[in-house]
Amino acid sequence: MPSGEHPPPIVSLLTDFGCRDAYVGIMKAVLLARCRHAHLVDVSHEVPAQQVVPGALLLRSAATYFPVGTVHLAVVDPGVGTSRRPIVVETDSALFVGPDNGLLLPAARSLGAVSVRRIDNPDLVSTSASNTFHGRDIFAPVAGSLAAGSDVRDVGPEITDPVELDLPVAEIVANRIEGRILYVDGFGNAITNISEALVSDAVSGDCVVHVGGLELQGLHAAYGSVAVGTAVALVSSWGTVEIAVNGGNAARTLDLNVGDAVAIEVE
Amino acid sequence: MPSGEHPPPIVSLLTDFGCRDAYVGIMKAVLLARCRHAHLVDVSHEVPAQQVVPGALLLRSAATYFPVGTVHLAVVDPGVGTSRRPIVVETDSALFVGPDNGLLLPAARSLGAVSVRRIDNPDLVSTSASNTFHGRDIFAPVAGSLAAGSDVRDVGPEITDPVELDLPVAEIVANRIEGRILYVDGFGNAITNISEALVSDAVSGDCVVHVGGLELQGLHAAYGSVAVGTAVALVSSWGTVEIAVNGGNAARTLDLNVGDAVAIEVE
Amino acid sequence: MPSGEHPPPIVSLLTDFGCRDAYVGIMKAVLLARCRHAHLVDVSHEVPAQQVVPGALLLRSAATYFPVGTVHLAVVDPGVGTSRRPIVVETDSALFVGPDNGLLLPAARSLGAVSVRRIDNPDLVSTSASNTFHGRDIFAPVAGSLAAGSDVRDVGPEITDPVELDLPVAEIVANRIEGRILYVDGFGNAITNISEALVSDAVSGDCVVHVGGLELQGLHAAYGSVAVGTAVALVSSWGTVEIAVNGGNAARTLDLNVGDAVAIEVE
Repeated sequence: MPSGEHPPPIVSLLTDFGCRDAYVGIMKAVLLARCRHAHLVDVSHEVPAQQVVPGALLLRSAATYFPVGTVHLAVVDPGVGTSRRPIVVETDSALFVGPDNGLLLPAARSLGAVSVRRIDNPDLVSTSASNTFHGRDIFAPVAGSLAAGSDVRDVGPEITDPVELDLPVAEIVANRIEGRILYVDGFGNAITNISEALVSDAVSGDCVVHVGGLELQGLHAAYGSVAVGTAVALVSSWGTVEIAVNGGNAARTLDLNVGDAVAIEVE
Repeated sequence: MPSGEHPPPIVSLLTDFGCRDAYVGIMKAVLLARCRHAHLVDVSHEVPAQQVVPGALLLRSAATYFPVGTVHLAVVDPGVGTSRRPIVVETDSALFVGPDNGLLLPAARSLGAVSVRRIDNPDLVSTSASNTFHGRDIFAPVAGSLAAGSDVRDVGPEITDPVELDLPVAEIVANRIEGRILYVDGFGNAITNISEALVSDAVSGDCVVHVGGLELQGLHAAYGSVAVGTAVALVSSWGTVEIAVNGGNAARTLDLNVGDAVAIEVE
Repeated sequence: MPSGEHPPPIVSLLTDFGCRDAYVGIMKAVLLARCRHAHLVDVSHEVPAQQVVPGALLLRSAATYFPVGTVHLAVVDPGVGTSRRPIVVETDSALFVGPDNGLLLPAARSLGAVSVRRIDNPDLVSTSASNTFHGRDIFAPVAGSLAAGSDVRDVGPEITDPVELDLPVAEIVANRIEGRILYVDGFGNAITNISEALVSDAVSGDCVVHVGGLELQGLHAAYGSVAVGTAVALVSSWGTVEIAVNGGNAARTLDLNVGDAVAIEVE
C-alpha cells in the first residue's frame, strides 16, 4: 500500500436474509454506492429467520476479531416498519448499525463502553424508504456513509433506553457451575454460557459435566483428546464450555438443544 | 480515495451453481485474472438449477441498486454447449454478460433502452473453451475484460433477435387487478407482478385481495400492521404487491406457489 | 490503478465450516487484520464436515484458475488440536496454508513441484491459539502474513513426510479404461477420475461407458448433445469424464455415488 493511502474501510454484514434471494447483494450494492472502497465481509446470512438471539450471539462471537474501525451492519428485524427504532451503537473501536431490538448490544458491549444513537437524519437514508426492507433503505446507506467517513454524531440523537436481550447467565451454586446451551453450531457443537473465567475460578481439579442426562468426565484440551465418536466437554474457541462429539455431531447424537441446562460439578 | 484514482469496477454475479462446489470461486478467479481490482458482489448463486425465470427476476430486482458502470455476470444456462448464443447486453448505466436465453433482458430493460451483442471475439474468451462451463470459459473472461475497460463494441456484432422471456403481466379487468405470484422468497413471502403503479391507478379506497382461496382486507403499510401469525398484503420492497404472514412463512402457511392467481378487488 | 501500485494479493478460502455460523467471517477478519488489501475469494465452505477428500478435490479443481501469487487457505481439519501438523505448501505459482492431512497436496501438485514447511514460528500465529479453531488462530494469521509479503521461509522448517491422500487412479486394462466416481457436484453430475488424456490415448472410435448397471453410447460434446432427461457421458470442465443427465440430476436419477466404478469400453 502506498504510504499515505488510507486502508480500505471494513463493513461486516450479518442478516437472516439467506443467500437464495438477492437481498444481501442489494444491500452490498447500496453500501458500495456510498463507500466504493469498502471491504465487505459476510459474518452470516443464515441466522434463523427473525430470531434475534442467535444473530446477537454470532455477531458477538465475531466482532472482537475485526480491525479497529470496522462498521458492523446487522439486520435481523422482525419489527421492520413498526415503531422499532433504527440505531447506531458506537464503541471506541467499532460502529454497529441495525434495528433496536437487542441484536447489536451484546457484540458492542463485548468491545467496551457503548453509546447509542437513533437514526433520524433524512440525508443519510434512502429518500423513499420502504416499510419492509430497512436493510436496503436505512441501515446500508447509514453503514456506507459511516464507512466513508461520516461523523457518527450526524446520524441522530443519543438514546439511553435501547432494547436489551435477556441472555441467561451462568452462575456458581455450591460446588456446581450452572449454565445453559446458548447456541448449536453447524457441526452440532453445543456452545454454553459457561465462560473460561468462571471455569478457572471454580474448577481446580477433577470435574463432571452434566448435560442431557449424561455425565462427562472432566474438561479436555481438544476434540481429539477422546476417541472418535465420543462426547467431550472442553473450553472451545468461543471462550466458553462446549459439548462436542469427536468427529461427530453432538447435538444430533446427544439430543442437545438451545436452552438445555449444563452443570459442571467440582469434585 | 486519493483524488485522480478510479473507483474499483464492480462485477455482480448471479448463477445457479450453488455454493457447495468450486464453480463460483473458479469464475471469480478468472474474473480477477482479467481485472484484479474488481469488486465482486454476489447477487445469488442459489437460483434453482437451470430455471431461467427466477434468475431473471432476482437479477432485475437487484440491478437498479448497483452503481453506474457495474458489469453484471449472470449464468443460468441449461443450453450450455448448444447453439444458444453468448451475449452482452448494454444499457446506458450497466453491462450484462451471460447466455441468450432471456436471463439478462428483464434486468437490462428495467434500466432503460438496451442493445445486444453476440460474443464472438476469440481474444476475449478462453483459448480452449469447454462445452460445459461457459461461465468460466466465456462469460467470466468477457465480464472481466469489460470491467477492466475493454470496449463493449469489441465483443462482437449487434443482434436484434435476443431470446425474450414470457413473463405474465398483471392487468385491470373491470373492478379487479388480476395478477400472479412471480416468486417466493426465502422468508416465504409471495411476490406478485402487480406493480405499485397499477395499484395507484386502480385502488383509491378499500380493496380485497384474493389469493389461494383467501380474502385479505386491504393493502397494509408493513408486516407489523397486522398481528403476528396473520396474513397481510402490502406493497413490498420489490415495488409490487406481496402476500406475507407477519412473523411467519406465507408460502408454507397459505400454500402459495409461483403462478398462483392473485386478484385485487376494488370496492 | 496508479502505475507502480502492487495489485491486491488474492487469498482463496476453502473450509467445511458452512455459512450458518460466523467461523468464516472470523477467519476473514483475522486475514484482513494482517493484510488489509487482500482480495478474499471463497472457493467453498460447504465441504462435507470433516471430509478431507472432497475438500482436496474442490481445491485442486480451482487452484489452477487463480492468478500467480495466490495464497490458498484451506481448513478441513478433523485432527485440530492433536499432533496433526500445520503446514504451508509452496509451489512456483502459489502458496497453500492448512492442516497436514492431505488436503493441500493434490491442488499444489497440480501446479508443479512442491516443498512443504511445518508452521512453527510463534510470531506468525495468534498468541493464545485455541485447540479447536486453528483456522482462526494459526492458518488465517499465517495466510494473511504471507499475502502481506512475509517470506515463506520464515514460517518454519521444511518437512519431507507430509500426509498424502490415497486417491483412486484410473487405468487401462485390455480394451477398457477403468475408473471411479470421485465427486458428485450440486447439479448431480458425477465427476470421474478418467482424464481427458487417458481418453485420448485409449479411445479413437466408438465406445461404451458402463456405470451403475447402465451402458451409455459414446462420449458426447455437450449436455445438450442428447435429449433432455437423457443420461450422457462427456469430458467436462473438470478435464475428466463426467456422467450427467441433460437438464436433470444424474446422481439422483441414476443412483450414482462417490466410489462407484466407471468403465469405458473401446469397441
